[in-house]
Amino acid sequence: MSSVAFAQPKSVTSPLQIPKFARRSSLFSPPNFFLPPGSRWDRFPALSVASSTDNSTSDLPPLVVVGSANADIYVEIERLPGVGETISAKSGQSLAGGKGANQAACGGRLSYPTYFVGQIGDDANGRLIKDALEAVGGVRLDYVKSVGGSPTGHAVVMLQPGGENSIIIVGGANTFGWPSVLSDQEGLEIVKKAGVVLLQREIPDDINIQVAKAAMTAGVPVILDAGGMDTPVPSELLRYVDIFSPNESELARLSGMPTESFEDITVAARKFHSMGVKQVLVKLGAEGSALFVEGEEPIKQPAIMAPKVLDTTGAGDTFTAAFAVALVEGKSKKECLRFAAAAASLCVQVKGAIPSMPSRESVTSLLQSPV
Amino acid sequence: MSSVAFAQPKSVTSPLQIPKFARRSSLFSPPNFFLPPGSRWDRFPALSVASSTDNSTSDLPPLVVVGSANADIYVEIERLPGVGETISAKSGQSLAGGKGANQAACGGRLSYPTYFVGQIGDDANGRLIKDALEAVGGVRLDYVKSVGGSPTGHAVVMLQPGGENSIIIVGGANTFGWPSVLSDQEGLEIVKKAGVVLLQREIPDDINIQVAKAAMTAGVPVILDAGGMDTPVPSELLRYVDIFSPNESELARLSGMPTESFEDITVAARKFHSMGVKQVLVKLGAEGSALFVEGEEPIKQPAIMAPKVLDTTGAGDTFTAAFAVALVEGKSKKECLRFAAAAASLCVQVKGAIPSMPSRESVTSLLQSPV
Repeated sequence: MSSVAFAQPKSVTSPLQIPKFARRSSLFSPPNFFLPPGSRWDRFPALSVASSTDNSTSDLPPLVVVGSANADIYVEIERLPGVGETISAKSGQSLAGGKGANQAACGGRLSYPTYFVGQIGDDANGRLIKDALEAVGGVRLDYVKSVGGSPTGHAVVMLQPGGENSIIIVGGANTFGWPSVLSDQEGLEIVKKAGVVLLQREIPDDINIQVAKAAMTAGVPVILDAGGMDTPVPSELLRYVDIFSPNESELARLSGMPTESFEDITVAARKFHSMGVKQVLVKLGAEGSALFVEGEEPIKQPAIMAPKVLDTTGAGDTFTAAFAVALVEGKSKKECLRFAAAAASLCVQVKGAIPSMPSRESVTSLLQSPV
Repeated sequence: MSSVAFAQPKSVTSPLQIPKFARRSSLFSPPNFFLPPGSRWDRFPALSVASSTDNSTSDLPPLVVVGSANADIYVEIERLPGVGETISAKSGQSLAGGKGANQAACGGRLSYPTYFVGQIGDDANGRLIKDALEAVGGVRLDYVKSVGGSPTGHAVVMLQPGGENSIIIVGGANTFGWPSVLSDQEGLEIVKKAGVVLLQREIPDDINIQVAKAAMTAGVPVILDAGGMDTPVPSELLRYVDIFSPNESELARLSGMPTESFEDITVAARKFHSMGVKQVLVKLGAEGSALFVEGEEPIKQPAIMAPKVLDTTGAGDTFTAAFAVALVEGKSKKECLRFAAAAASLCVQVKGAIPSMPSRESVTSLLQSPV
């Protein structure tokens, strides 16, 4: 039995058969992560949506994911080419990805009404992304804008023996061509009607700030996944965020603090409380996850063991998006963490990012199975 | 005034604003290249098609290009990433390319009835290529086969300051998924009806051999562009080829002989006569071109000066394809060389490969303009 690893140092990982993103050794002994018996789990106060266990989802306030869409271009090579050199790859594959599209796909796969708001180029890679999200089902693309003059964002992922990747990212339409002021028609109307808004850091901070501010003003909770740009998170953005979700390396980088022990992680996460974020959801890879609510004890969730870890691509995105879905459905904090852990556990058993997003049924089934 | 440079060390070059493929210094003094006054130019004996100067092209035997189709993925970077490193590109762009698709596009742009026979994957890059060839107009795609299980061939071209490129090639559907025996329906029927067949070396030799043999049996002349794989050309393939067309570096590599002077080049080209190829068409970049017919004096064609060399991408493909078009139209050897030189001169004045292919009108106009 392998444990679930979903810490992602970068937004793109490998769908091919090469081990990658090797986790460093365990930070904590697993027993530390199990919850104390009899713990009480409050519901998220911001949410008024009743827990949905039936299939009538049409009148639910949607999950709205605003973010990046990427074509991830994987090439499997023996070694990097030198300057001026031409080499042949052993194989190659292009897949839809990007943290925004991945997280929207997860919402769709979990059968929760989901909108994706993002920008693509008027090109073949843009169609790749639309086709992939349409194939998932359940993701509305009404607010996906095709911009001229910029290519669809893409990343060249050079997979090398031993699991090392070298990555070249082209921001393209994720970075360029955004309106200076986002209008209702360009996405804000659906943001204001959302049950929860999910952001990441692969589009300009300025857009995230406008979206988060509009959501907050409308009383819609905002989750910010820390993945993407490695620049500091603007304090104005954090002000509008209800839940900030870094993985361990993002937490270390953005807090500027060590994350060697759970005590370290707690101190680093609490730093964001002082910056105005009431809840910090830390993804710890094989060590599970933890939710730090201001003024409360941390809530720990162990990783749910996967029989076999095949590919961790998209597992972090799955965790954050599944947490968001559980949250908008009114689940308790503990339930949200367990739901997300189960989704991530299923994700790592299938190759690719979007193809590995689990269905609602498989998550429910895993949660109901005897431990 | 810059001279035309169309020698291409590789099949992919840059459409972005980075100088590349710097030619080494001139091999010959230009006057050597001008033809002696009063030379007589025989027509190609294999051809019975009358020279076409009107616009009725419907009953002409087509140019059939069998070869590769590629998505060329250009990323402009400051430096190559290290192992395990992620960097951002300054820009990125994906364009249709591949020597086969480029040469077919050139035929279409020159308003000569052209078929492209090749394989693409069932993916976004495959649509990129089809869209690009459809946009050119005049290229029939009836024999473009979409194969499952392999991606469309693609190349990642990493453009670096100073004009150096590092390239990773994924053969994909250009390499894999070909039938062991090519049927009439898979392309041989149109090969047999062709006015001329144009091949390169970016698809398996075995397919080229089947195509060239079928063409020869049907009395259709075959031109083999040497660009593509750097393995030796199979002797069986050369046996079915009427005109073999390397650039200078390909000639050096494939003959194993020096090409430092025109005398060197003559000896190297003549080597292919001894291997059964009656005509060798050598592309010499800024130094023009030369046709070596067995038992005859070499025919030299100087490069036609371009007011400004913007991008040499696709210029070699343009030269070979324009030569093929002129050949099937029954032009004399000298006329074929001039027509090809004019097309290449126009090509280098526009960025990109397929977008830079000149129209028939522009080539005619350049040839009629006072020198």
